[in-house]
Amino acid sequence: MNPNSELGRALKSLIARADEALTRSLPPEDSSPVELHRAMRYAVLGGGKRLRPLLVYAAGHAFGESGSRLDAPACAVELIHAYSLVHDDLPAMDDDALRRGRPTCHIVFGEAMAILAGDALQALAFELLAHDVDQGVSPTRCVEMLRVLGRACGAEGMAGGQALDLAAVGRRLSLDELENMHACKTGALIRASVRLGALASAAPDDALEALDRYAHAVGLAFQVRDDILDVEGESSVIGKTAGKDAAADKPTFPSIIGMDASREHLARLTADALDAIAPLGERGALLEELARYAAARQR
Amino acid sequence: MNPNSELGRALKSLIARADEALTRSLPPEDSSPVELHRAMRYAVLGGGKRLRPLLVYAAGHAFGESGSRLDAPACAVELIHAYSLVHDDLPAMDDDALRRGRPTCHIVFGEAMAILAGDALQALAFELLAHDVDQGVSPTRCVEMLRVLGRACGAEGMAGGQALDLAAVGRRLSLDELENMHACKTGALIRASVRLGALASAAPDDALEALDRYAHAVGLAFQVRDDILDVEGESSVIGKTAGKDAAADKPTFPSIIGMDASREHLARLTADALDAIAPLGERGALLEELARYAAARQR
Repeated sequence: MNPNSELGRALKSLIARADEALTRSLPPEDSSPVELHRAMRYAVLGGGKRLRPLLVYAAGHAFGESGSRLDAPACAVELIHAYSLVHDDLPAMDDDALRRGRPTCHIVFGEAMAILAGDALQALAFELLAHDVDQGVSPTRCVEMLRVLGRACGAEGMAGGQALDLAAVGRRLSLDELENMHACKTGALIRASVRLGALASAAPDDALEALDRYAHAVGLAFQVRDDILDVEGESSVIGKTAGKDAAADKPTFPSIIGMDASREHLARLTADALDAIAPLGERGALLEELARYAAARQR
Repeated sequence: MNPNSELGRALKSLIARADEALTRSLPPEDSSPVELHRAMRYAVLGGGKRLRPLLVYAAGHAFGESGSRLDAPACAVELIHAYSLVHDDLPAMDDDALRRGRPTCHIVFGEAMAILAGDALQALAFELLAHDVDQGVSPTRCVEMLRVLGRACGAEGMAGGQALDLAAVGRRLSLDELENMHACKTGALIRASVRLGALASAAPDDALEALDRYAHAVGLAFQVRDDILDVEGESSVIGKTAGKDAAADKPTFPSIIGMDASREHLARLTADALDAIAPLGERGALLEELARYAAARQR
């Protein structure tokens, strides 16, 4: 995103807001169990793009909501994302030592503590979200939000996608299989982010479908861009080990359809996303900016 | 528990009910991602004492509730318990190969799948609980139940207790430190079980405190009994490796206060638990039976 445009500045201030809410929501470093709290904070507060919180805020803004009731869902999706990275980086999983330009959680705190920190972050996400009634979200909506988050994280969502990913190593996938894997692994939480932002706002039910089409496209676009960056990016810029997926013989968009077709696919997905939110007009400006960012980001 | 007494039969039928609800709630083995679903079912449906679901049902019964609204919390606490065992058994944690008389989840499905199965089970627990509104629990109560479960699982509860446990290996703990560790590691979920059963029922707020005193005592009693069994039990009966804690230099009640004092402590805790629920009279019969069982069980 362009940090000097009006939209870029708006998103930058929302990132600061998410960071502040996360800092406030995580357990303090000076209370027991200290190591666990430190590992949790390390995993979450290490920078990060905060795409998911931004999607929560942007979806909320599209329906006139900019208040504190968006903070809990924004934190919840980022906590879930952070926990999934901690577990994905473990030796038994992707065995990655570098993340966001820093040593991964298990490198710093050990494997056992990294597993526990991930587990505790997941629990905290649900606990925080259940407190959104204190910010004026109706209990009925809050329960719906918790259902959405639970489904997005579980066997039919993020964890299921990671299982499909594990099963795919060294195997030749079709484009459909690859997209299905990503739709679960990263797409489910991205869709949940947009939906939670809308549910915490006064979004009418019939708007949810268009938003979901947007979120589905943005989620895939984000992943296609990730795969392209894995090929052409540099570790120092993207903040993790470049060429890692290719080296691990993981199926990627470029490996299945080639770089040119991957770029075209990315453009099509972005157009889909923008088309889905066109009816929102000006109110969809932040969502539009995020779709463009997902497709053009350098890291 | 005596399987031939009236109470024993009641509890046995509640175990069957919990097993049935769990079987129904877990994702089917024949749908994708198959390996993940299989690992989740293996981790949960392998027998187990079902103490936590029984506490949910027993607390519900004490307040006149025996309907289907108890099934979701009963399943949720057991899913959380099962996921915690899967993660605790991992090589990076307790490195245990035997659980409930069977190979542990990571031995059968590999470490990566065991981590994911645990993660997905935690998500499923929250998702299921958020569906309890479909059984007639009010959204306000349901949100409160989700908060209780989230807090019990996280850094101030189960995951925090496991972190304290890790930090305690090879260290000499005081009795207070040991009890605090167990109050988090196993106690928090046991207390949540009782509280969820009461919240799903028409339990008045002022009954919750006495129930919590009961649950705190039962949770500790359960753990003291566990430590005693680790010393005098046989692997074939207790279904896991006997003498494991001593061998791993883990602090236990017998290692800190000796076997005789551990037995006395157990008796005192049981008396505490029974005293707390005495005002319930006959309605507390199932809770009473469970307190006696926690203290006298052979496995």
